[in-house]
Amino acid sequence: MTSHAASPVLVPPRPRGNAELPGRLALSAATTAGAHLRIEDVHGWLADRDRAHRFEVERIPFAGLDAWSFHPETGELGHRTGRFFTVRGLRARIEGDPATEWEQPVIEQPEVGILGILAKEFGGVLHFLMQAKMEPGNRNLLQLSPTVQATRSNYTRVHQGAPVRYLEHFVRPERVVADTLQSEHGSWFYRKANRNLIVETDGEVETHDDFCWLTLGQIHALLRWDNVVNMDARTVLSCLPFPDAAPGALHPDTEVLSWITGERSRHDVRTELMPLAQVRGWIREEHRIRHEHDRYFDVIAVRVRAGSREVTSWTQPLFEPRGLGVTAFLTRRIGGVPHYLVHARVEGGFLDTLELGPTVQCVPGNFAHLPPDRQPRFLSTVLAAKPDRIRYEAVHSEEGGRFLNAESRYLVVEADEEEAPTTPPEGYRWVSAGQLTWLVRHAHYINVQARTLLACLYAMET
Amino acid sequence: MTSHAASPVLVPPRPRGNAELPGRLALSAATTAGAHLRIEDVHGWLADRDRAHRFEVERIPFAGLDAWSFHPETGELGHRTGRFFTVRGLRARIEGDPATEWEQPVIEQPEVGILGILAKEFGGVLHFLMQAKMEPGNRNLLQLSPTVQATRSNYTRVHQGAPVRYLEHFVRPERVVADTLQSEHGSWFYRKANRNLIVETDGEVETHDDFCWLTLGQIHALLRWDNVVNMDARTVLSCLPFPDAAPGALHPDTEVLSWITGERSRHDVRTELMPLAQVRGWIREEHRIRHEHDRYFDVIAVRVRAGSREVTSWTQPLFEPRGLGVTAFLTRRIGGVPHYLVHARVEGGFLDTLELGPTVQCVPGNFAHLPPDRQPRFLSTVLAAKPDRIRYEAVHSEEGGRFLNAESRYLVVEADEEEAPTTPPEGYRWVSAGQLTWLVRHAHYINVQARTLLACLYAMET
Repeated sequence: MTSHAASPVLVPPRPRGNAELPGRLALSAATTAGAHLRIEDVHGWLADRDRAHRFEVERIPFAGLDAWSFHPETGELGHRTGRFFTVRGLRARIEGDPATEWEQPVIEQPEVGILGILAKEFGGVLHFLMQAKMEPGNRNLLQLSPTVQATRSNYTRVHQGAPVRYLEHFVRPERVVADTLQSEHGSWFYRKANRNLIVETDGEVETHDDFCWLTLGQIHALLRWDNVVNMDARTVLSCLPFPDAAPGALHPDTEVLSWITGERSRHDVRTELMPLAQVRGWIREEHRIRHEHDRYFDVIAVRVRAGSREVTSWTQPLFEPRGLGVTAFLTRRIGGVPHYLVHARVEGGFLDTLELGPTVQCVPGNFAHLPPDRQPRFLSTVLAAKPDRIRYEAVHSEEGGRFLNAESRYLVVEADEEEAPTTPPEGYRWVSAGQLTWLVRHAHYINVQARTLLACLYAMET
Repeated sequence: MTSHAASPVLVPPRPRGNAELPGRLALSAATTAGAHLRIEDVHGWLADRDRAHRFEVERIPFAGLDAWSFHPETGELGHRTGRFFTVRGLRARIEGDPATEWEQPVIEQPEVGILGILAKEFGGVLHFLMQAKMEPGNRNLLQLSPTVQATRSNYTRVHQGAPVRYLEHFVRPERVVADTLQSEHGSWFYRKANRNLIVETDGEVETHDDFCWLTLGQIHALLRWDNVVNMDARTVLSCLPFPDAAPGALHPDTEVLSWITGERSRHDVRTELMPLAQVRGWIREEHRIRHEHDRYFDVIAVRVRAGSREVTSWTQPLFEPRGLGVTAFLTRRIGGVPHYLVHARVEGGFLDTLELGPTVQCVPGNFAHLPPDRQPRFLSTVLAAKPDRIRYEAVHSEEGGRFLNAESRYLVVEADEEEAPTTPPEGYRWVSAGQLTWLVRHAHYINVQARTLLACLYAMET
């Protein structure tokens, strides 16, 4: 340094990484005896919370919606304040030979929400504060959610409800474990992203009946049950920086990035919002907007009466998919290291062309009218898998604040070279769990379905 | 594994990183005696290539453009094939109190181009194949460019020119050193990204008069000269995975990511393309489109006659900025480690809200009419810096295929605590060079001006 520059500030440089964190996460994952609730009591606690509140969800015609209406010209379905979300039209075109083009209803919700889990050590083991939260679209209504699940409308109090509990820990985080924008469903949302945030605190945290502290070992056990851990919790949990237990991978990291860059470059995707009233192939009826062939999803409306939600009664639209989805990773040991087959998926609502999804992600019913050679790739392998090839299986719901009964069987299925070769078809690649963990630290890489599976991989491997 | 799953494939896992590469890059950076050309001969070689071709660029009225015209309704300026690029209108709105809203002409060029540098060892030292390339917008026309600089129109041969030399090395790369999509100027382009690609080969590479192999040490020496290394070369060079020489940083990586996520979340930016004819505050004349107060840039047209370019003569529009830019990092040693002050910059053309830019990035002339308290932050510190505080300074051009005489003084200036505190204003953060290198591996983090400075940091530090 030159002489007259300020004397060096006496701050010791801090390590760029957090060397202790992976071990602390591993310890929490190995601990199934939590400091607060036994795993066998969680279901009882959830049932108890369910009884403590009276939740009712009933379908209503669009005409029964309060404060929501179709715009007289565009046909868009929005809230009178312009907040929350709007159902609009989307036109998507993927160039190619032939080009693929379609139109559909889509949810536009440009504001970034916070999905936050608070972490704290009890007895030297990290626990995570989970909430028993009602969402109108969940079949069982009450599931385990993040500590905080707040849209900007929530925390700016547009709907005049109660303040969001624990939000202050995420607005000014004490010690960040992970913090990334992550996309949501590219087939239903237009460029929606939420902030996935895990914050550790050393301070006292007031407890509340609807919240409980659980170790990762306990959460992982609950992830093996159907419809217990909600989507928002799963996506946040997928962002935990678990240690990479494996010594390497089939493709070095630079090759994986290069493959993603190449996939992004070769796809020419154009999308634009359009008036919902002009979307071709979709029919608006009194109770729903449906596809002309009764495929994909319906847009419907519900009335919700709830005790624990911020306000006691409201109406809102929801998307209701047609049929149960199948969302699966094929897995193989390659060179002794478990690998997962990711698919570079173009979805109309993604901000940046494509993200890595599971090997299979579809609602099989949408393809029932098509011949075998036009079925989704690898679907038959997943559906035909014998029980001893299934390393993970559970039914989980997608975000119950926007989707009604949107459920999918999430699976991890062992495959062999014949079913899923080491050199897979164009658009697919084998990556290790460590590589998924490395990529999910950044936005735009791993889609929400693959993030659920990533959270389940952690659960599976403990 | 279960018994009937395929026997494990006998592929040894490969390391996820490339342990040798950083040392090999450092060796190339330390080598100024290249195997092919001496550094003192590069200017002569460039002058020689300049003489070998006859380049002429002349300004013409818009009416003199061949194959380019204004759309009769939208006023958009495009090529009759619909390819290359189109000058359209952009409306941008940043919510806030008060909200900022403006309209401007913008270049739309949705296709992803390839910027590729080929690398090869000679005498055990990595050399990089650089091209003497003419671009009509460069003041000195001929500069050092990447091996390949190809739009999709180039390599699909829309303009019927000659094939792009060496392109095959990048279409099917032998060994990838770096490969990332990177944004270009968010103030002039709408969501433009190019593939920044460095590929190493062991094979024989045919040479050509317009190309030369240089070590990084030689390229770094040339980066200290004005207008020698073009923008496309600088952005590709910034992606080289140099080793992190420092032991740590002021903020651990997770804190840096969390800060970026927070900055993205708190900015609500809405942008949309609009008809150029309706853009408020811009005036179309016979020779140019200009801002009503003669600020920012003009859209103009040129005729180019060239020998070495793919076709021998053509016309095209260019953006011509008003005045010389100032693009600078403030730097300080914090805990003994050099840090650089990045700015989370919203630019209307960015795909994802904001990217990290230099401490200062502006054309001072655009602010000349404003009082001192509305000048760009830190500009006065940069402009007032005494020579012994200036660690790097050179004038470089932006992309000469789209911009005419778009030049900026690039600087790295030492600051002290008073000028630039360790806890900087909102929207600014101190990061180490190693953290910039780590972030530039992924898209959407480091803007093109900061990437030029990053390439110069490598040059500065050797």
